[in-house]
Amino acid sequence: MWDRFIRACRREPVDCTPLWFMRQAGRYMSEYRSLRERYSLLEICKTPELAVEVTLQPLKAYSVDAAILFADLLLPLEPMGAPFDFQAGEGPVVHSPIRTAADVDRLRLIEPEQDLEYVLKAIRWLRQELDGKTPLIGFAGAPFTLASYLVEGGKSSHYLTTKRLMYSEPKVWNALAAKLAEVVRRFLRAQIEAGAEAVQLFDSWAGALSPEDYVTFVEPHVAHVLQDVMQLGVPVLHFGTGTQSLLELQKRAGGTVIGVDWRTPIEEARRRLGTEVALQGNLDPILLFAPRELLAARVKDLLARAGKQGYIFNLGHGILPQTDPDQVRFLCDWVHEQSA
Amino acid sequence: MWDRFIRACRREPVDCTPLWFMRQAGRYMSEYRSLRERYSLLEICKTPELAVEVTLQPLKAYSVDAAILFADLLLPLEPMGAPFDFQAGEGPVVHSPIRTAADVDRLRLIEPEQDLEYVLKAIRWLRQELDGKTPLIGFAGAPFTLASYLVEGGKSSHYLTTKRLMYSEPKVWNALAAKLAEVVRRFLRAQIEAGAEAVQLFDSWAGALSPEDYVTFVEPHVAHVLQDVMQLGVPVLHFGTGTQSLLELQKRAGGTVIGVDWRTPIEEARRRLGTEVALQGNLDPILLFAPRELLAARVKDLLARAGKQGYIFNLGHGILPQTDPDQVRFLCDWVHEQSA
Repeated sequence: MWDRFIRACRREPVDCTPLWFMRQAGRYMSEYRSLRERYSLLEICKTPELAVEVTLQPLKAYSVDAAILFADLLLPLEPMGAPFDFQAGEGPVVHSPIRTAADVDRLRLIEPEQDLEYVLKAIRWLRQELDGKTPLIGFAGAPFTLASYLVEGGKSSHYLTTKRLMYSEPKVWNALAAKLAEVVRRFLRAQIEAGAEAVQLFDSWAGALSPEDYVTFVEPHVAHVLQDVMQLGVPVLHFGTGTQSLLELQKRAGGTVIGVDWRTPIEEARRRLGTEVALQGNLDPILLFAPRELLAARVKDLLARAGKQGYIFNLGHGILPQTDPDQVRFLCDWVHEQSA
Repeated sequence: MWDRFIRACRREPVDCTPLWFMRQAGRYMSEYRSLRERYSLLEICKTPELAVEVTLQPLKAYSVDAAILFADLLLPLEPMGAPFDFQAGEGPVVHSPIRTAADVDRLRLIEPEQDLEYVLKAIRWLRQELDGKTPLIGFAGAPFTLASYLVEGGKSSHYLTTKRLMYSEPKVWNALAAKLAEVVRRFLRAQIEAGAEAVQLFDSWAGALSPEDYVTFVEPHVAHVLQDVMQLGVPVLHFGTGTQSLLELQKRAGGTVIGVDWRTPIEEARRRLGTEVALQGNLDPILLFAPRELLAARVKDLLARAGKQGYIFNLGHGILPQTDPDQVRFLCDWVHEQSA
């Protein structure tokens, strides 16, 4: 059923539970590692031919029900005027962190059709490859998550500089987050117009915030993105980790599907969020390292608790590079078999 | 009121809300940094005279309502047979990680009176210094948190190796966690017998676990520690971060006070945990970097939501090294003033 994923996002009946994985194309696959011997991560992202090839790799290997464009959350930052690169063992490094009103003023509101043309080209190409077989998910990072990289200059454990900016200079923070929100809104719109049949907003690090800070400093910017993008009629997936206390607020900010990580039992998320949204999640990615018997039992139990309506199976966060591809293959087949 | 902290732990009436801070003695204080120029962290921990001096530093500077012994969570690992040190920028490094049944077999069940005598000596000394003025809190790391350092060999972002051990070799995991639990039980008992007037169990990283994994692999070991230590009649504080989905389970495992981080609204914790336990928390440590007006408003609101009975003010995690001591001083006075 080619539209199993889309139907589940819309809470329509499905023959079995659809699934896909965050980072389903990535270092755990030898096909991907071979390509990375020749090209950097950013070269792959910026070369539509390579991005298309990598996006398709997991579709050839596993029975996933959606493709997700191979790209990086940070791609919009470069044309905004905040170049970055990936340093081995360090993750992304933003060369000149954004911390003042003047820094924020200098950031450009990009035009995705020009500034991120390579992404849209890959999407159009993928739609030709996939059309009528597998739906394609586009994505972008949410304002807080993107801002945290911009302000900290890279990944962070405490988000000290980002939160200090929020607290100390709320005008500067709001100008930054509003600019990011507008860029992300345009970018997700452009991806949908180019052919993405669903989009996911990654607010990966929102779980570092108290509910009060989320409401005060983050929710309006997320809502700016999602309330607009939801008008285009495609499923909009709203994802975060460590968001046990934020789920209702995330639902209010927007999204037709809410992502839930393994810390929140799926039936609790269902109870709290009601039946207006679909749910996506929520296996701990480390359960892919468990013996098959335990993995199978946990997945069977999760499927029973999640129910079949309005539910997309996924991990609570991305597949780890050390994951055994055979376990991924088993997991795909098992989810389909057990939910059929 | 010298026993304000103890009374709040027992849900008895207090004149105003007591407070203390995790890492209240530490790098944010110039007095501590001066000492660290001459001594390493472990030298301070292992020299009772220095540990006493550092423990007393915040009591001289601020109106905190409890002293917490200056020590490190990992101290018991060395006499157990798993030596470690602190490497600059890396945090703790365990020289030979514990990953097999044979590794676990080799770990010793320590006798705190011999093996951690320096800690108990510092506690006895502190009780003489503090008696009748400020109560002294002892502490230890919880089995999962300690095991994560032992198994990973240091700090971790995904706890891959630790969780894999749980899933793949539950007998080895349970043997390891049981050994740690017994060591921690003995160590907390010994601290109380040496004079600690309350103890805190730090399950700092338990929030990485799904509720199901917590129940299956962790809760019995925490209960082994806490159900025994609670019999000694002193307040037992049970702390973690990112535990929004675990609070009821942590309460069931034990503790007369449950620690709550900033991700869970304090009134929600109260509603979920009822009135049998006291609560401790839950200001985001980064709010100490906010302008004083915002800090004051947030604290005032928190105090109103927390209520005065059975509540100890604290941060949701340790004070960060970059914190301004003047803000800490203001915070102490403000909490007392606003709750009087």
